[in-house]
Amino acid sequence: MPHIDNFRVEERDIPELLDGRILCQNLFISLESGFRNWMDEGSGDEILPAMPIGEPVMGLTLSRVLESRNPLYRAGDLLMARFAWEEFTVTDAGDFISPLTDVKHPLNYYLGVLGDTGLSAYFGLTDYGDIKPGETVLVSAAAGAVGSIAGQIAKLYGARTVGISSTAAKCQRLISDLGYDAALDRTVADLDKAMTIACPDGVDVYFDNVGGPMLQTVLNHINEEARILLCGSVATYNNPLPQPGPNNLFQLTTRHAHMHGFMTHLQLARYDEARTVLAGWIEEGHLVVHEHRLQGIENVARAFCDLFAGVNFGKTIVVL
Amino acid sequence: MPHIDNFRVEERDIPELLDGRILCQNLFISLESGFRNWMDEGSGDEILPAMPIGEPVMGLTLSRVLESRNPLYRAGDLLMARFAWEEFTVTDAGDFISPLTDVKHPLNYYLGVLGDTGLSAYFGLTDYGDIKPGETVLVSAAAGAVGSIAGQIAKLYGARTVGISSTAAKCQRLISDLGYDAALDRTVADLDKAMTIACPDGVDVYFDNVGGPMLQTVLNHINEEARILLCGSVATYNNPLPQPGPNNLFQLTTRHAHMHGFMTHLQLARYDEARTVLAGWIEEGHLVVHEHRLQGIENVARAFCDLFAGVNFGKTIVVL
Repeated sequence: MPHIDNFRVEERDIPELLDGRILCQNLFISLESGFRNWMDEGSGDEILPAMPIGEPVMGLTLSRVLESRNPLYRAGDLLMARFAWEEFTVTDAGDFISPLTDVKHPLNYYLGVLGDTGLSAYFGLTDYGDIKPGETVLVSAAAGAVGSIAGQIAKLYGARTVGISSTAAKCQRLISDLGYDAALDRTVADLDKAMTIACPDGVDVYFDNVGGPMLQTVLNHINEEARILLCGSVATYNNPLPQPGPNNLFQLTTRHAHMHGFMTHLQLARYDEARTVLAGWIEEGHLVVHEHRLQGIENVARAFCDLFAGVNFGKTIVVL
Repeated sequence: MPHIDNFRVEERDIPELLDGRILCQNLFISLESGFRNWMDEGSGDEILPAMPIGEPVMGLTLSRVLESRNPLYRAGDLLMARFAWEEFTVTDAGDFISPLTDVKHPLNYYLGVLGDTGLSAYFGLTDYGDIKPGETVLVSAAAGAVGSIAGQIAKLYGARTVGISSTAAKCQRLISDLGYDAALDRTVADLDKAMTIACPDGVDVYFDNVGGPMLQTVLNHINEEARILLCGSVATYNNPLPQPGPNNLFQLTTRHAHMHGFMTHLQLARYDEARTVLAGWIEEGHLVVHEHRLQGIENVARAFCDLFAGVNFGKTIVVL
């Protein structure tokens, strides 16, 4: 479990701007629980390398080019980038940068509802949800960056929505602030019974942001032809060893149900189309955006730890 | 694990044929590992009731009506039925009987390749396999009733097929008798390494008849957009307690892969269509049928135990 004492703020000089490089100012840092996966030594895989201990933490930023000695970029360009948690970045601009052009919406939206988290909710439900009006859609980490959008999209698609969260206060806000029809506190003594009460007609779609033991409980409540959308697995990111999976996966067979994993960054070609839909819903008042927003580089570590402590409601960002 | 000593043969008088009932002669008994799930006390569920200990074992039969006092049936009618392991059955003919009309093929085919097992292979691969030519299809329990058909269908759909079995001798027969391109002995010391060798390009489709630990190993070999078809779970049927699931289910997310459970009996309306296709393949010599065939009521228990001992090659039936 990441703790604020695992991090420190260091001051360093900005490196010289050699030929081929760009100097960027990082305007926002987007906090993503998934990055926990590459924080252990030896945790590199085919997706990302492990972050070297003692070096700046790798993350996601929205940045502006201040000075460019690279023909592909000009001063003033906006970028979504996999930069470190730092105020300024000098880089030779590899393939971990995606230019942000044709900006029509508030910049902070591009980290949340119009960024990977909002788009994950959109692509997951749109591509694999197949929601029929009146079906029950259950969302875990329902107050999180992805869940807070997923619940609202499912509602727009005609579902009865049920959100899972970690405190009674957040459960109350799921209903009042995010329009969930019902909420489920995952810390109750008898989770299975609480799920029966919250989902009396069973679960048709489970939008899973947490993985871990919750999936096993949900599998006992799925309806025939249920769809389980595996988006994230925050419950397992901090475990040093792999944890056993659900012991009732055979429920998928007896319920002839379906489980879909998906990675949003593979849908890059459809980002514009999805952003148009999502922005339209925001403008029409059908989709509200919540942010857990902190200020200043000294609060990035706290913002990251908040993700795992369940403190955030909506997308967690730091404004630099 | 079922053992032959758990069963005994008893002689009883055939009950009186009351009004509304039919007397049937059971011609074949089809052995199905899945029925193990309802052999424990208290194991009844929404699919089937538990079998009472000490009473005749419930199974699947192909039967002929000898005498009818029920207006829905006539002497000579052929039935697929969920009757007990017995030579003659008297019943009031509930919804566990499906008339077998328009018989065009050898009767034994209706228990295997044209019955639930062959149709499982067909519907699973046809509805969810989405096989592109040259893709790798891996089949567990590849010599079994379902697997022996699944491997051949996958081949017909253009795949490179790899079968998993439990002995070197059966692995050899997978290639020579069933046309698999490669075979994998699941008892080898380093299964993961053997899978890398048998599936050098990874796994695009996994047709899973066994569940259990094998799925965890396979998940480490799946390609992007892989499809995992959950047909059976013979590895878990004998466990008194639920066993932990794969600890790497998150591979589905990082590979944006898909898992589909399916139950063939729900496709009843499409049985005729599927049987026409399968029978056509048999007639053209593209699909060969293997049977593990025993004779006589006294050998039914042995035939059932053979399923779990890995003795069978192809569909296991008893001819009465």
